[in-house]
Amino acid sequence: MSESAANAISDVGALLRPASIAVVGASANPDSPGHDYVRCLVEFGFSGPVYPVHRRESEILGLTAYADLDAIPGDIEFVISCIPSGGVLELLDSCARKGVRTVQLFTGRFSETGREEDAELEREVLRRAQAANLRLLGPNCMGLHDPGWGISFRPDLPRRTGPVGFLSQSGNNTTEVLIHSDVRGIGYRAAVSYGNALDLDAADLLTFMAGDGETRAIGAYIEGVRAGRRFLDALGGAARSKPVIVFKGGRTGAGARSAVSHTSALAGSNEVWQGALRQTGAIEVHSQDELIDLFVAFTLLGEAPSGDRVGAVGGGGGRAVQAADACTEEGLEVPPLSEDIRSQIRERAPDLWDWIGNPVDQSILAGSGAGVSGAAVLEMMAESPDFDLLIANVGEDWVLGRPDSGRRLMHIVERFAEIGVRCRKPVAYVIGPADSPDEARWRAVEGARTLLIDAGLAVFPTVERAAWALGRYVRWHRSHA
Amino acid sequence: MSESAANAISDVGALLRPASIAVVGASANPDSPGHDYVRCLVEFGFSGPVYPVHRRESEILGLTAYADLDAIPGDIEFVISCIPSGGVLELLDSCARKGVRTVQLFTGRFSETGREEDAELEREVLRRAQAANLRLLGPNCMGLHDPGWGISFRPDLPRRTGPVGFLSQSGNNTTEVLIHSDVRGIGYRAAVSYGNALDLDAADLLTFMAGDGETRAIGAYIEGVRAGRRFLDALGGAARSKPVIVFKGGRTGAGARSAVSHTSALAGSNEVWQGALRQTGAIEVHSQDELIDLFVAFTLLGEAPSGDRVGAVGGGGGRAVQAADACTEEGLEVPPLSEDIRSQIRERAPDLWDWIGNPVDQSILAGSGAGVSGAAVLEMMAESPDFDLLIANVGEDWVLGRPDSGRRLMHIVERFAEIGVRCRKPVAYVIGPADSPDEARWRAVEGARTLLIDAGLAVFPTVERAAWALGRYVRWHRSHA
Repeated sequence: MSESAANAISDVGALLRPASIAVVGASANPDSPGHDYVRCLVEFGFSGPVYPVHRRESEILGLTAYADLDAIPGDIEFVISCIPSGGVLELLDSCARKGVRTVQLFTGRFSETGREEDAELEREVLRRAQAANLRLLGPNCMGLHDPGWGISFRPDLPRRTGPVGFLSQSGNNTTEVLIHSDVRGIGYRAAVSYGNALDLDAADLLTFMAGDGETRAIGAYIEGVRAGRRFLDALGGAARSKPVIVFKGGRTGAGARSAVSHTSALAGSNEVWQGALRQTGAIEVHSQDELIDLFVAFTLLGEAPSGDRVGAVGGGGGRAVQAADACTEEGLEVPPLSEDIRSQIRERAPDLWDWIGNPVDQSILAGSGAGVSGAAVLEMMAESPDFDLLIANVGEDWVLGRPDSGRRLMHIVERFAEIGVRCRKPVAYVIGPADSPDEARWRAVEGARTLLIDAGLAVFPTVERAAWALGRYVRWHRSHA
Repeated sequence: MSESAANAISDVGALLRPASIAVVGASANPDSPGHDYVRCLVEFGFSGPVYPVHRRESEILGLTAYADLDAIPGDIEFVISCIPSGGVLELLDSCARKGVRTVQLFTGRFSETGREEDAELEREVLRRAQAANLRLLGPNCMGLHDPGWGISFRPDLPRRTGPVGFLSQSGNNTTEVLIHSDVRGIGYRAAVSYGNALDLDAADLLTFMAGDGETRAIGAYIEGVRAGRRFLDALGGAARSKPVIVFKGGRTGAGARSAVSHTSALAGSNEVWQGALRQTGAIEVHSQDELIDLFVAFTLLGEAPSGDRVGAVGGGGGRAVQAADACTEEGLEVPPLSEDIRSQIRERAPDLWDWIGNPVDQSILAGSGAGVSGAAVLEMMAESPDFDLLIANVGEDWVLGRPDSGRRLMHIVERFAEIGVRCRKPVAYVIGPADSPDEARWRAVEGARTLLIDAGLAVFPTVERAAWALGRYVRWHRSHA
């Protein structure tokens, strides 16, 4: 790595982990972003000084408030702006006087409105910031979510830390991805909503996350980039070292038109993007669900798989067929049970050993009264040299129709979890979404899933989504071996 | 329709709606299918006589039990068998003596075990049934779920009736589809798990459902068929008159191998299946989620759309871009707002009318304080001749971060629902799965979704799944106009 590249990395990293923060446009009104930003710093436990700035208030959320930046006694590294766009130029001047390093502009209504005066103001903001050596995040962004550093933009966002880095031009998408991936056990090193990308852009954030030792997988929701070559270099550099998952917005004419009024992004030709993603080895996804499924695969399945041979257990015969079809169509192998496993089953279940295949149809075992369970076969597969990846279908819909179902479900999940925690092979667990209006059902499924999540295991809502993610996980590791 | 075809339809319909039922192998043990079948008839409110048959018990679940069929005083139209396979031939003989019309064989371990003696027993079962003029459902099946007729196979299955017919070779899949589609508001005219299809098969069930006036959409999970030409005729006939959605199991080598040990089905060449589905106009899906999404589209979106132009509101700017991309990629049009709607917005929101597009970015409206809401624009689109289909993004993740979020969320959903109920255009609502371990969040999302479901509206968990389903819905109507 060149010296300047190394400097760039540590610079962006330092910018995003400031020692002191002022919130300009802080508010006592709990229904305002100026309140949320201050409250997050308090509730997420930011360890440095926090300075709310408000013209009249003397205290906000128990913190001393200041009339302006100049009135603040200490140094300020990072400023969050929630004031209207008309006040931003003046704010930048006072930031320059205080030696601020970075300004995060929640403030919007710049070029994204499509009006020339707003676009001109945005250009002037950039000129003023560059002249004063200030870096900008945004404008028109929610900004940083870094629970490990005590920063977020909404008090209800998950506190979970972890190895994922996420950059997104959309604040709402960032929120949605954070909330729905938390349910799957995904924690964040940093999530950065960066809006119009006037200064700090996708290239800067990708380079920072690529160089960050604690980030193991990177996701990006991108609507457009200005400096194409710089972006491609950054994307290529990042994708060489870790999985980079790109959700490109504005792939179509109508999507590109929407992107302009969202972040003033020029979406660019979809063909060019496709080529760039292929060339750099980034993985493209087309929905938040796919993005989250790959965060799960690349951070919770463990190290590189030894191959592509899948062993699957659990669920009924239909699920076994579905698992086999889905895995095969995703380019994985679903071999028959090996002789070694067949002879182990024969000893314990002489009545049905010859009927059981891979995937294992749980209903054959359930009906037998024989001494072999789905978990027992999963364990055989975990220990066998003939399988590289495992799928454990919890099959909760069957269990929940039986008496004493809650206890039975937890027993199955505990046994499955033990095997996954001990095993060095990637294991994908399948348990459906707990989205039932029936409280007992919600509690049972949520409890079982939480047990798996808390054990650090990779959980998918359907076997097709598990197979889809396993396929991409195997191919990525094959091309990065 | 020929006379013989009409007879076949009414025959199968009559077979599946019997006036009296005996459960052979009925059990007082609540952890057994022989218990579940009897309990379902009681709890689902089957109106005819129910006769549990058990060698020793004199009463099961409050009903008089009989030692065998001969001991039953009244007529028996339908027999559910839960006894081991070894007793089935004798059972068929006593069914013949009693004038039974149909025997549903939950009993399994026939040809699906792969053993010649089991396959030979299965063949003998068919010969014996045919000689006695008995029709068979199964073997190796869960059988009928017809809540309107008071029949089911598991006491915890949903009671909701409705216009969907579903036939499935897998009992577990039937259970899973019933449970997860109930959450989406899908009710059933009949769901039939038909296992090995020894006698009554996919062709019979498709023909029955095609001819049934109350069935508006048909789904089928099929692993294989024996009489290809007969099946194709039935599929073609059904698909001409109503949407037929086929989830084919055993599309791959490993899937076909699993299908053999599940239902002894010969999966057949996937190319031949693809061709047949294309030729008949049936719609192919590859997961239960896709199947359920199309049940929602074809039974809850209403009548044929007037075209393919989508108007979308709700959610932030990222959601707007996602909606535009997903709809366009599914072959739908996402036109700009019409002049008429733009001038209506201009009157109410002079500050931002020129910035708002289609899809409508809710965050522009939320920040404005102007007198135009997402619901107001949805209403304009509902009344405009320039849009054929609507998407209403609830955007619950944004709302749930605000104070008083529960009330706000219900307000949005109530306004959206009013428009959808009044409007003659298809409206797809998007609200994410309520699968959070946080009880308050679960309750809020579940409550909002239930309001939409109870209003009979079409709800999808993501905008991409809504767009996918809308695309197939539009194309089906176009080819059946």
